[in-house]
Amino acid sequence: MPVTLTTTDADFEDRFTAILSSKREDSADVGDAVAAIIADVRARGDQAVVDLTARFDRMQVTAKELRVSQAEIDAETAKVSGAERAALQLAAERIRAYHARQMPADQSWTDGIGATLGWRWTPVAAAGLYVPGGQASYPSSVLMNAVPARVAGVERLVVCVPTPDGVINPLVLLACELAQVDEIYRIGGAQAIAAMAYGTDSIPPVDKITGPGNAYVAAAKRQVFGRVGIDMIAGPSEVLIIADDDQNPDWLALDLMAQAEHDADAQSILVTPSTRLAAAVTQAVERLIPTLPRSDIAAASWRDYGTVIVTRDLTEAAAISDRVAPEHLELCVADPQTLSARTRHAGAIFLGAHTPEAVGDYVSGPNHVLPTARSARFSSGLSVMDFLKRTTLAQLTPGALAAVGPAAVTLARAEGLDAHADSVAARLAALNERTAS
Amino acid sequence: MPVTLTTTDADFEDRFTAILSSKREDSADVGDAVAAIIADVRARGDQAVVDLTARFDRMQVTAKELRVSQAEIDAETAKVSGAERAALQLAAERIRAYHARQMPADQSWTDGIGATLGWRWTPVAAAGLYVPGGQASYPSSVLMNAVPARVAGVERLVVCVPTPDGVINPLVLLACELAQVDEIYRIGGAQAIAAMAYGTDSIPPVDKITGPGNAYVAAAKRQVFGRVGIDMIAGPSEVLIIADDDQNPDWLALDLMAQAEHDADAQSILVTPSTRLAAAVTQAVERLIPTLPRSDIAAASWRDYGTVIVTRDLTEAAAISDRVAPEHLELCVADPQTLSARTRHAGAIFLGAHTPEAVGDYVSGPNHVLPTARSARFSSGLSVMDFLKRTTLAQLTPGALAAVGPAAVTLARAEGLDAHADSVAARLAALNERTAS
Repeated sequence: MPVTLTTTDADFEDRFTAILSSKREDSADVGDAVAAIIADVRARGDQAVVDLTARFDRMQVTAKELRVSQAEIDAETAKVSGAERAALQLAAERIRAYHARQMPADQSWTDGIGATLGWRWTPVAAAGLYVPGGQASYPSSVLMNAVPARVAGVERLVVCVPTPDGVINPLVLLACELAQVDEIYRIGGAQAIAAMAYGTDSIPPVDKITGPGNAYVAAAKRQVFGRVGIDMIAGPSEVLIIADDDQNPDWLALDLMAQAEHDADAQSILVTPSTRLAAAVTQAVERLIPTLPRSDIAAASWRDYGTVIVTRDLTEAAAISDRVAPEHLELCVADPQTLSARTRHAGAIFLGAHTPEAVGDYVSGPNHVLPTARSARFSSGLSVMDFLKRTTLAQLTPGALAAVGPAAVTLARAEGLDAHADSVAARLAALNERTAS
Repeated sequence: MPVTLTTTDADFEDRFTAILSSKREDSADVGDAVAAIIADVRARGDQAVVDLTARFDRMQVTAKELRVSQAEIDAETAKVSGAERAALQLAAERIRAYHARQMPADQSWTDGIGATLGWRWTPVAAAGLYVPGGQASYPSSVLMNAVPARVAGVERLVVCVPTPDGVINPLVLLACELAQVDEIYRIGGAQAIAAMAYGTDSIPPVDKITGPGNAYVAAAKRQVFGRVGIDMIAGPSEVLIIADDDQNPDWLALDLMAQAEHDADAQSILVTPSTRLAAAVTQAVERLIPTLPRSDIAAASWRDYGTVIVTRDLTEAAAISDRVAPEHLELCVADPQTLSARTRHAGAIFLGAHTPEAVGDYVSGPNHVLPTARSARFSSGLSVMDFLKRTTLAQLTPGALAAVGPAAVTLARAEGLDAHADSVAARLAALNERTAS
């Protein structure tokens, strides 16, 4: 049974704060093991990757075989059913259309003193996408990472996906094809992150690494951050659903379990002013769990982290949601737009009863790579911006330098940076001479 | 003497690659010491901060005195000269005007199937800015961090600045005042980062931490990343100047030394097709160094990392620059705009002989917090975006769900996520019933 809280209870604040600060992540410290793997890949390159793949994925390949061949891609993707292919194509198209609108514009203007200022955006030259293997090898995640990279204009797009015991996922390969991925390597774990960050003879390095992964992958991304860019350190996922009395309890139960079935560390939270609905959804969840193929995972998540909160009204529900800053926020209420405007911290908002979060995982268009574990307080989901960088531009005329240069000299002297000051002062002196003569 | 390379030399590629991969950072591993400090602050809160401040900054203060009082701010800022105050005000105004243009727009549209999609931006609720103490306590950096946060709409803005032996910098306090900083704490190092990330009784936690710092500060930011957002791990700074034959060697020498005087690990690179200019600048630098107040630092930087590269032409110079991906790129050439369009990877570009990098450090308007150590390949300078986050929005009508829902069901089943599939399928079934009846 999940925790059920009521905001009017005397102990609500204490219990809610405890839930907010509960640590759901597996705290296994793999930092040292990962550091050793990264050092090994840097020192021995391909051979380290080959050895580590044999050890962790039980798969003997040569350096040359690390890359999945076009023939293999063709053979595997041919196995995908027509319905699955069409679904993946629809998803790719909708994700592309949404992300195309995210492309930011360059700017340039000349201000009052004659300084021409602005900035421009350029794509990262090479990006590497990590795709987990096994059960969590999701073709939808390939699209969510690779399509924005392509929209941004990334020239070289690499995917690393481990294939434990040689098992490869045809849908993952098809998603790579639809997103025009250039190179696919059958490697995973910290060794894949190290190879993409530092490069080996067979795997040229990239500039940016994105994509989800287990604790080893997360630790490796953290350690190579700086050498390359990374997207974020993904934590356990969560959904918060705000519902009014008029909602279908079975649909809400499915939405809560769609989150819970991901991972025993996932968190599903229902917030509603309706005591009746709270009870109905709780009962519907109990009926539903045993019927799910992933019932063990969903049951564990719901038991350990499931939360039902009864509030005074929807406004209070929005305030509760902001304190959680959920990755996914479903607004199953009569007027979702008004409620949406009252919330500030969420990775993605799904408005109305016909926008279940699961549709957003695949085909609605926005990205499903979103800030987890309360990080929506300060970060955003994946977007084309993750594959672009901004260069600022400034060009001063002699007149503009004459206008603002003296202030720069004053501040540079105050900071004890005399070469800074003199680099401006020398030009100002030349301008003064010119004016005087 | 700096390294001088010519691109037509047989060994150019090897020598240039060696420069690119040279590690300039101090590699002292302070990770364990920093982890202990963070754990201490989490466990003991204010008392840990007080104890660590006594130990590292030789300053005995109570928890209550950690915050700089308004009376002290008023007394200190009154010491600032009129010229310095005016210069700082001009800088704040120009930085504010530039960054106001960075505010991104919210988007909302309804697509062909009737899905209303979009996103909106909201500010981080609380941000903390780290300002180094001592020699590197730069009022300009306060403005460059705090003004964008204010423009973004951050409600609570905190500054931590260590005051070793009790010495406080009046200009830093004035910069805080001009940028409307809400709280200033006289603490530094990893303990300041830990306090801002986790909070203490006297220092409420923030959501995002930005600002430069020493190895301890950088390691602490890396370790609290995830709990809070951070801007970037700043490395040693660099400038690359592309100059044609027609430039003033003394100005270029000053620009190179403005970089070198920051830090012995800073790097100054001149790239020019003119052998004559290369020699003239090198000689000018040699004459200049002994005259500088910070000549020891500048001399060490120039000796260890200074580089002069003679190229075939300006196009090749641009290609060289892209491989360096410099933090600062000065284009001291007759037609800087054409050359700017040929470069892709740089934090900030300064166009023309009258836009020395130093003017950009203070008053030109763009941010001076920029990606260092080749990270301009994948990241951008500080901007209002660092203090905003994007929430994606989707609202499907029943018709829109009917159009794309089946594809979501197919993909969810393929990924083995049946609650995902059913959460969509249940709604589709209800829609079909409604249509049938």
